[in-house]
Amino acid sequence: MPIIDNAVYVDGVRTANPPSLEETFETLRDRKGIAWIGMYRPNRDELQAVADEFGLHPLAVEDALKGHQRAKLEKYGDVLFLVLRPARYLDAAERVEFGEVHVFMGHDFAITVRHAEAPDLGRVRKRLEQNPELLALGTEAILYAVLDEVVDGYAPVIAGLQNDIDEIEDQLFGGAAEVSKRIYELEREVMAFQRAAAPLVDIVQSLERGFEKYNVHVELQRSLRDVLDHAIRTADRAEGFRTLLQNLLVTSATLVTEKQNDEMRRLSETSLSQGEQVKRISSWAAILFAPSLITGIYGMNFRFMPELDWPLGYPLALLLMALLSGGLYRAFKKRGWL
Amino acid sequence: MPIIDNAVYVDGVRTANPPSLEETFETLRDRKGIAWIGMYRPNRDELQAVADEFGLHPLAVEDALKGHQRAKLEKYGDVLFLVLRPARYLDAAERVEFGEVHVFMGHDFAITVRHAEAPDLGRVRKRLEQNPELLALGTEAILYAVLDEVVDGYAPVIAGLQNDIDEIEDQLFGGAAEVSKRIYELEREVMAFQRAAAPLVDIVQSLERGFEKYNVHVELQRSLRDVLDHAIRTADRAEGFRTLLQNLLVTSATLVTEKQNDEMRRLSETSLSQGEQVKRISSWAAILFAPSLITGIYGMNFRFMPELDWPLGYPLALLLMALLSGGLYRAFKKRGWL
Amino acid sequence: MPIIDNAVYVDGVRTANPPSLEETFETLRDRKGIAWIGMYRPNRDELQAVADEFGLHPLAVEDALKGHQRAKLEKYGDVLFLVLRPARYLDAAERVEFGEVHVFMGHDFAITVRHAEAPDLGRVRKRLEQNPELLALGTEAILYAVLDEVVDGYAPVIAGLQNDIDEIEDQLFGGAAEVSKRIYELEREVMAFQRAAAPLVDIVQSLERGFEKYNVHVELQRSLRDVLDHAIRTADRAEGFRTLLQNLLVTSATLVTEKQNDEMRRLSETSLSQGEQVKRISSWAAILFAPSLITGIYGMNFRFMPELDWPLGYPLALLLMALLSGGLYRAFKKRGWL
Amino acid sequence: MPIIDNAVYVDGVRTANPPSLEETFETLRDRKGIAWIGMYRPNRDELQAVADEFGLHPLAVEDALKGHQRAKLEKYGDVLFLVLRPARYLDAAERVEFGEVHVFMGHDFAITVRHAEAPDLGRVRKRLEQNPELLALGTEAILYAVLDEVVDGYAPVIAGLQNDIDEIEDQLFGGAAEVSKRIYELEREVMAFQRAAAPLVDIVQSLERGFEKYNVHVELQRSLRDVLDHAIRTADRAEGFRTLLQNLLVTSATLVTEKQNDEMRRLSETSLSQGEQVKRISSWAAILFAPSLITGIYGMNFRFMPELDWPLGYPLALLLMALLSGGLYRAFKKRGWL
Amino acid sequence: MPIIDNAVYVDGVRTANPPSLEETFETLRDRKGIAWIGMYRPNRDELQAVADEFGLHPLAVEDALKGHQRAKLEKYGDVLFLVLRPARYLDAAERVEFGEVHVFMGHDFAITVRHAEAPDLGRVRKRLEQNPELLALGTEAILYAVLDEVVDGYAPVIAGLQNDIDEIEDQLFGGAAEVSKRIYELEREVMAFQRAAAPLVDIVQSLERGFEKYNVHVELQRSLRDVLDHAIRTADRAEGFRTLLQNLLVTSATLVTEKQNDEMRRLSETSLSQGEQVKRISSWAAILFAPSLITGIYGMNFRFMPELDWPLGYPLALLLMALLSGGLYRAFKKRGWL
Ligand SMILES: [Mg+2]
Ligand SMILES: [Mg+2]
Ligand SMILES: [Mg+2]
Ligand SMILES: [Mg+2]
Ligand SMILES: [Mg+2]
Ligand SMILES: [Mg+2]
Ligand SMILES: [Mg+2]
Ligand SMILES: [Mg+2]
Ligand SMILES: [Mg+2]
Ligand SMILES: [Mg+2]
Ligand SMILES: [Mg+2]
Ligand SMILES: [Mg+2]
Ligand SMILES: [Mg+2]
Ligand SMILES: [Mg+2]
Ligand SMILES: [Mg+2]
Ligand SMILES: [Mg+2]
Ligand SMILES: [Mg+2]
Ligand SMILES: [Mg+2]
Ligand SMILES: [Mg+2]
Ligand SMILES: [Mg+2]
Ligand SMILES: [Mg+2]
Ligand SMILES: [Mg+2]
Ligand SMILES: [Mg+2]
Ligand SMILES: [Mg+2]
Ligand SMILES: [Mg+2]
Ligand SMILES: [Mg+2]
Ligand SMILES: [Mg+2]
Ligand SMILES: [Mg+2]
Ligand SMILES: [Mg+2]
Ligand SMILES: [Mg+2]
Ligand SMILES: [Mg+2]
Repeated sequence: MPIIDNAVYVDGVRTANPPSLEETFETLRDRKGIAWIGMYRPNRDELQAVADEFGLHPLAVEDALKGHQRAKLEKYGDVLFLVLRPARYLDAAERVEFGEVHVFMGHDFAITVRHAEAPDLGRVRKRLEQNPELLALGTEAILYAVLDEVVDGYAPVIAGLQNDIDEIEDQLFGGAAEVSKRIYELEREVMAFQRAAAPLVDIVQSLERGFEKYNVHVELQRSLRDVLDHAIRTADRAEGFRTLLQNLLVTSATLVTEKQNDEMRRLSETSLSQGEQVKRISSWAAILFAPSLITGIYGMNFRFMPELDWPLGYPLALLLMALLSGGLYRAFKKRGWL
Repeated sequence: MPIIDNAVYVDGVRTANPPSLEETFETLRDRKGIAWIGMYRPNRDELQAVADEFGLHPLAVEDALKGHQRAKLEKYGDVLFLVLRPARYLDAAERVEFGEVHVFMGHDFAITVRHAEAPDLGRVRKRLEQNPELLALGTEAILYAVLDEVVDGYAPVIAGLQNDIDEIEDQLFGGAAEVSKRIYELEREVMAFQRAAAPLVDIVQSLERGFEKYNVHVELQRSLRDVLDHAIRTADRAEGFRTLLQNLLVTSATLVTEKQNDEMRRLSETSLSQGEQVKRISSWAAILFAPSLITGIYGMNFRFMPELDWPLGYPLALLLMALLSGGLYRAFKKRGWL
Repeated sequence: MPIIDNAVYVDGVRTANPPSLEETFETLRDRKGIAWIGMYRPNRDELQAVADEFGLHPLAVEDALKGHQRAKLEKYGDVLFLVLRPARYLDAAERVEFGEVHVFMGHDFAITVRHAEAPDLGRVRKRLEQNPELLALGTEAILYAVLDEVVDGYAPVIAGLQNDIDEIEDQLFGGAAEVSKRIYELEREVMAFQRAAAPLVDIVQSLERGFEKYNVHVELQRSLRDVLDHAIRTADRAEGFRTLLQNLLVTSATLVTEKQNDEMRRLSETSLSQGEQVKRISSWAAILFAPSLITGIYGMNFRFMPELDWPLGYPLALLLMALLSGGLYRAFKKRGWL
Repeated sequence: MPIIDNAVYVDGVRTANPPSLEETFETLRDRKGIAWIGMYRPNRDELQAVADEFGLHPLAVEDALKGHQRAKLEKYGDVLFLVLRPARYLDAAERVEFGEVHVFMGHDFAITVRHAEAPDLGRVRKRLEQNPELLALGTEAILYAVLDEVVDGYAPVIAGLQNDIDEIEDQLFGGAAEVSKRIYELEREVMAFQRAAAPLVDIVQSLERGFEKYNVHVELQRSLRDVLDHAIRTADRAEGFRTLLQNLLVTSATLVTEKQNDEMRRLSETSLSQGEQVKRISSWAAILFAPSLITGIYGMNFRFMPELDWPLGYPLALLLMALLSGGLYRAFKKRGWL
Repeated sequence: MPIIDNAVYVDGVRTANPPSLEETFETLRDRKGIAWIGMYRPNRDELQAVADEFGLHPLAVEDALKGHQRAKLEKYGDVLFLVLRPARYLDAAERVEFGEVHVFMGHDFAITVRHAEAPDLGRVRKRLEQNPELLALGTEAILYAVLDEVVDGYAPVIAGLQNDIDEIEDQLFGGAAEVSKRIYELEREVMAFQRAAAPLVDIVQSLERGFEKYNVHVELQRSLRDVLDHAIRTADRAEGFRTLLQNLLVTSATLVTEKQNDEMRRLSETSLSQGEQVKRISSWAAILFAPSLITGIYGMNFRFMPELDWPLGYPLALLLMALLSGGLYRAFKKRGWL
């Protein structure tokens, strides 16, 4: 059953739970109270039945059926049509999930149509039933209470977003420069949240003017201003998040380049130290190879090589080798190659 | 023939299909109805003929002939001149294609001039002829229905753009950092779309005020507000796309630099491991070369080389070579060069 | 002579070409028509003579003499003072060149002062003289016609800028990433153009209100609205160019970095392949060098080397060399070094 | 005790220090003065007691209890509710620390509720008690004095932020390009400060209108304008800081890349000079190795090698070696390899 | 003496140079003229003396004493208090230097307080004394003349800034990409200049409304509009400079990266050519080393080596060496290694 609750209130007190819409309508006329019908994802026929009883405008009914509306406030004759986008934060996925609730408010009736689990309108109804003086102020009290529920529901979203921005800051400045994807996606969520929440400032201000014009009880006006206060705070914070995330994106790009500098410095040093090694290795190769040339010379088989017949030829050759290598060693050492 | 359809309606019902403009004009006077003439790319003479009959202003006629107008609403005496830019999305090319339609609306006539296939004004006419009560409200109903058709046509463009932005996100975060061209070009398309669609918010609001001032039927006023709602949603979404694409461009730049870091890290490691190889190879060269020096020495042909005559000279020389190489091996191993 | 043309019109028809300013003034009084004096770069005395005749305000005269004014509209008593900045596009240099024209408009006179070749006021005068009904509407017709000429002259500038932006896009995405200078300079030109053209929207709207207030003929009001339409289009396009060029600048930066990635990848691969070569060359060196060690050993001259006396010593030594080299070859092959 | 001070003033002079709220209330009625009660972090019961005496609105009381309000001004009947966010700068941590103060102002009472040490309301009270003529102007004087204290407290914050921005400039342009974290965090602090301070401009302007409407003494109006002047200056400076820090962030990114260029140039030069070394070393290797080939040839044991029997064979071989090496040396020198 | 000049004017003509303030005050009453007192950095007592005579408001006096005010216009009863920030450009340092001047203007007196050398109020006074008709229009003429002097003084600042921007463009596009510090600092100067100059637009517009309301002579109104024109032009140019400098900063970043690409390309090519050298050197090493292996073989001392006894053994061995080296040469040539 798409009709979740259906009650008639007189002076703020629940006086009837009519089993059908027809009886609701009848009771309403008899007792001069107000009716509040709560629906959940009604189909066309179900909503049309309510629309027929209360004279809801086809265009508003169309919107309420199709869903996926932007937050807005429209007036059809004496009936207000309000679309709200409640939100909650899925911290694990870093996503904002949106609900949708529509309110039709006439002089003596309020019809609330939910398209998602959120917001908890049962809680709203309970709150009002526990405050008969508030509910006795008219259907505007229901409108206010639904708005208050939705706007209060934005606070945990703001807190969750703030928390993730803090995490991103820690991640970014803690060395993990590659957070641009997370920043981008979080800003996209903030933008979607702004689309849901920011219009409420105008909507509530517009309702305020209406409440003043139609002399709605001053206490309801003040309560609505309290909702406005929270709506403004929400919009301000979300706007601030946008700027922070933009700055984080630019900072992240800079930090990525700073990291690149570190990498490049490491590369430079590696390269430089390789150059040193090549020098050192080549020097040692020369020191080792120079005596080889001498052994090669005295290994030649010429018949007439006087040194070969010198009694001290061999030790002199060894000495020559040692002198050659020693000389090279000292020369390379002097040039700083070893 | 540039005149596509030409009908006279009385109380919302088609009562005549005059074969010529003159007869349309006559029938109109006789029956006190409204005429709706649909044209497609008329040339100067054809449009001038209509203009002469209905007293259209030369400047508006000039605009309608030249085309390439911005979306706008102008008033010439009692005649409204409306320029609309319908759009459709070419998904393969990722381009928004624009049409152009002009509407002249007087008290008892509506002239629609199309410059492109879109929008399907035949469908608009059919819809109105099936709703005689709506059409009976006057030529404003035709204006509304054309606007509704054009604005509803923006929804698939929004969906197509959203879809391509999603694709770009997947592409970008899926590793293909080089999507800046695609981002740039899509934003250019969104900008062109905004030029077509965003002025509709002001135009429809201006029409709303006119409808209120001239007491157009309240149902038409509400229908127009529904168009406004869709126009605002379109403008909001397009604006949001701009921001998303800007963010994607910055994010893409950052990811390109991140990729560069990966590349540079790879280069650093290659460079480092080359350094290692050079060390290892040089060490092995030294181990191999050291015995060579000994073979060189004992290959020399000096007459007086006592070792050569030792019975154990040869095995001792081999041992010396092994010890030399082994010593170098252990020294290099200790220094971590092998 | 700085006075280019000097005529008196009655009912839109040229009735006199007074040879001097004094006679213009006289004729004007006699025939109750309107005078239109066109000047080109007058010096102080020349302009002062006109100012004295028609009571032009010294501050406006000062502006008209100095030139280099911003586009503006000022009222001195009954005299309007209008400064316009016509523009043309120098495609080869990608520069916008600005002219400057001043209009003093009183009830029965219009004085146009040009400071540059553009705009072609002769053409404006010809157009009006061919439309006596238009000119008969008063000096406001001259004001309108000059505005129309200037604003129409902006269209080729817009087209030229669009064309160069298209070229930059092609250049940028065609591989030549280094176009940032061109982008910067073109945006600077667009900014200068905006400074000339954008104020026209306010100026023309302000004139519109004046025309309405002083009951200028409705056809002139409509013509002025047509100028406004073009002025708005010009301002819109120029603003759009700014955004496109900004995006191009960012995209260009990204593409430069992408190019750097390609360069770095090439460097990485070069580096990697050098490492491969070093490995291969070293391996071949070892394969060649290993037999050398054996030849060295058997080239030693020890008296007691049993292998030297073996009948198969030599072939066995060759075999040992082959085995050693072959073994190294297979070992290196297995490790992927060859 | 959360009640810090509790006094009744008549004609600006302290006339009573009632020991309890009830007596305050009584004294107030008797002497027709004004009461000023200062509280510090009251709990619900304590604040409720005051609220009951002075008829404070539950929603305002709720805000005052919960704290963490945005700066705002609200009117409940004849009572103004003002939330202020004083600030001070912690220079070591480069953080802005915020306090919170709430003011309830009625015709004959002012209740100030502090949630933090700052601001020093004792000083404010002392200042007013020393200016009885000012305090005699009514409770608006207290409102003014609290505002003045808070806004004057912003000046050192502005000075501290300016000082740190100067430091960052010196750091950045002094070579330490890696300051992006500091820039980001300082901008975040400036944003938080703007959230506290910027709303004061609207709040004070709104109070100004109220003071004018209710004929508050002209001197108080002028004093309030002085507060407004400081509030505007504060907001202007903070906005300017935002822009400077944004520019610093971009400049820092550029400087990081410039540093990278230096690094890369160093790497290039290292690489180039390594190439030179390799060339030189290889050349020397060739010069050394070439004679080795000759020693190898004449070390071969062929029976028929005529050169070996030449009397000058050995010196000729040495000459050949010297010529070969010398030739190579000259050849390499010519090619610039040595 | 802080009082620089002190004169009483009747009908625009200097009629008295009172030696003291008291006499000024007296003369003023007697002759019904206007007093103009010029001061330079007065101390509290000196300014207070003037304030007492002319009834200046303590808050305005406080501002005038403290200095460092933002440009603003305030009204205290019948007295206007105007703060102006004249500026001049220090081209060598590329800095804008600011002065500060305060004007108190009553019905019959003007007090000008300078806090810096600029502006040259002596010149202003001389100009007015040479235009008695202007000065005869009242103290508003003095206000106008000071404003005109200050605003005209902005023109050289604009010219200097433009000139430095041109220099930066030349520097940037002339190859010296590292100009980000200069750009940043110039934009900071432009921002400071905007803070001084931009408020003048609102201030002069506000004065315009006042002049109109109080029927100040129409010529003074027109003169003030001329000041407004210059103020707007100044503000427009400064705003344009901001955008140009922002673009230059981004362009500079891009050019730095482009330079990096050049550097990297050079590095790539160096690296590549080093790879080539290594290949060539290794090839030559192989060509040289291969014959060594043969000399080694035939240098072995095996008793049974048939080739050694061949009469053609030696020339065959040389041939083998030549063939081996020649074969390697051809093989390497074919592979492009030589
Ligand atoms: Mg929306
Ligand atoms: Mg996520
Ligand atoms: Mg989280
Ligand atoms: Mg944090
Ligand atoms: Mg808020
Ligand atoms: Mg807030
Ligand atoms: Mg903001
Ligand atoms: Mg447009
Ligand atoms: Mg495309
Ligand atoms: Mg697609
Ligand atoms: Mg997505
Ligand atoms: Mg929307
Ligand atoms: Mg929007
Ligand atoms: Mg301008
Ligand atoms: Mg150019
Ligand atoms: Mg071109
Ligand atoms: Mg293109
Ligand atoms: Mg346009
Ligand atoms: Mg980079
Ligand atoms: Mg910090
Ligand atoms: Mg510090
Ligand atoms: Mg500084
Ligand atoms: Mg705020
Ligand atoms: Mg300020
Ligand atoms: Mg300021
Ligand atoms: Mg400087
Ligand atoms: Mg300079
Ligand atoms: Mg230049
Ligand atoms: Mg200007
Ligand atoms: Mg501007
Ligand atoms: Mg880089």
